[in-house]
Amino acid sequence: MSGQRPLDILGRSVDKNVLVTLKGGKGIRGRLVGFDQHMNLVLADAEEIGENDEPCKSLGSVIVRGDNVIIISPPPT
Amino acid sequence: MSGQRPLDILGRSVDKNVLVTLKGGKGIRGRLVGFDQHMNLVLADAEEIGENDEPCKSLGSVIVRGDNVIIISPPPT
Amino acid sequence: MSGQRPLDILGRSVDKNVLVTLKGGKGIRGRLVGFDQHMNLVLADAEEIGENDEPCKSLGSVIVRGDNVIIISPPPT
Amino acid sequence: MSGQRPLDILGRSVDKNVLVTLKGGKGIRGRLVGFDQHMNLVLADAEEIGENDEPCKSLGSVIVRGDNVIIISPPPT
Amino acid sequence: MSGQRPLDILGRSVDKNVLVTLKGGKGIRGRLVGFDQHMNLVLADAEEIGENDEPCKSLGSVIVRGDNVIIISPPPT
Amino acid sequence: MSGQRPLDILGRSVDKNVLVTLKGGKGIRGRLVGFDQHMNLVLADAEEIGENDEPCKSLGSVIVRGDNVIIISPPPT
Amino acid sequence: MSGQRPLDILGRSVDKNVLVTLKGGKGIRGRLVGFDQHMNLVLADAEEIGENDEPCKSLGSVIVRGDNVIIISPPPT
Repeated sequence: MSGQRPLDILGRSVDKNVLVTLKGGKGIRGRLVGFDQHMNLVLADAEEIGENDEPCKSLGSVIVRGDNVIIISPPPT
Repeated sequence: MSGQRPLDILGRSVDKNVLVTLKGGKGIRGRLVGFDQHMNLVLADAEEIGENDEPCKSLGSVIVRGDNVIIISPPPT
Repeated sequence: MSGQRPLDILGRSVDKNVLVTLKGGKGIRGRLVGFDQHMNLVLADAEEIGENDEPCKSLGSVIVRGDNVIIISPPPT
Repeated sequence: MSGQRPLDILGRSVDKNVLVTLKGGKGIRGRLVGFDQHMNLVLADAEEIGENDEPCKSLGSVIVRGDNVIIISPPPT
Repeated sequence: MSGQRPLDILGRSVDKNVLVTLKGGKGIRGRLVGFDQHMNLVLADAEEIGENDEPCKSLGSVIVRGDNVIIISPPPT
Repeated sequence: MSGQRPLDILGRSVDKNVLVTLKGGKGIRGRLVGFDQHMNLVLADAEEIGENDEPCKSLGSVIVRGDNVIIISPPPT
Repeated sequence: MSGQRPLDILGRSVDKNVLVTLKGGKGIRGRLVGFDQHMNLVLADAEEIGENDEPCKSLGSVIVRGDNVIIISPPPT
């Protein structure tokens, strides 16, 4: 038994806002437009997130290469 | 003989609390919702764990990319 | 459901200007000429981007090996 | 001729105590419950080992992701 | 649509001078003799390039292992 | 022509003493018991080697995960 | 067109002296005895090369794991 598959869970976040933590410590928040099996991600209306969890730079649409991803999560509510 | 397979053991932890140690030293505790063969993980009610093994930040639901994982363990009892 | 595939999205940026953030912090801006499934990229009229997001060095045509890529995005407008 | 295969040798250590040295310098000692072809390991009654080769923290049961492993050895006798 | 494939573009640089930027910051300039799908490269009359983009050491013929490559470009004209 | 294959050469060192240099600088000397195609190694009567090429710690039997290996050589005679 | 394949070029260096630059900066000079498709190398009469490009340590025969290789070249003449 392996429970719910991570990529299936990720699929449910499409069109929703997610917070992505990258290797090196950078955080990016944006609307998840799509992804593939490598966890390559497409985010729309993306913002770089600073130390204090506040947006510090507007990025627009971005493609994130999956091997940089540590954690993907919905933003804190 | 290879004993019990790690992913089979991990399967028994689904729906239970686990502590995940990531490369770079970060720890995350949460309920294991699911995983795949890369050790990509889905955790619910996740919390970042600080130096003193105490929760220091609520993360909600998170998807952890498997290549960041060092150790997965049930939390100390 | 995985939404729109990252490489399909990338395909729509061919012949357009993109900003590529590389591991180690370097940024390169240029016109996307082509790419492959590893995110190896070909950029024309490429410029290295400095700390202040301003061009600091002309690179001409470049082939970027995909495993160095963190983020690909259209340049800020 | 390749002698005895490492994973066959590892199989003989199942149910025995092993010392695992991880990238970054951490050491873990525990009873080897099982493993797979990636050297993902399951250890029971695991303890983190400090600089002086003495146990410094009880970990209980742990799954170690194989790509962090440098050396696996029976503990010094 | 993925535009022109990076390795096809690289093929057009065979027998021409290229500048290769390697991980760790080293640069090598030389005539591209050949390459393979890993971006392993063969350069003839190669020179190591110093901080000021000037040749600082003659290397002769070199084989560069592809996983060290960041960027390949024709030299500035 | 690729000359003698590295793993064939390694096969001739089975049952002989080898010196293994690992990423991070650590050296291990021991009798090569076996290996596989990833250069995972089994060493018996292994010793950690210090800066001065002298044994500094007895390790007994060890399994070394191949991706940590830089160089394998017979010990200096 | 991909020109001459790197591994074919390497094959012509068998039985000749080569200089190998490794990740981390170490250099090794020796006679190339053989190699495989991962660029695992066997060198005979190998010497470690110091900062000044002079031999600083005799290594004898060595097997170099390919993923450590940056550059292979014939020694300067």
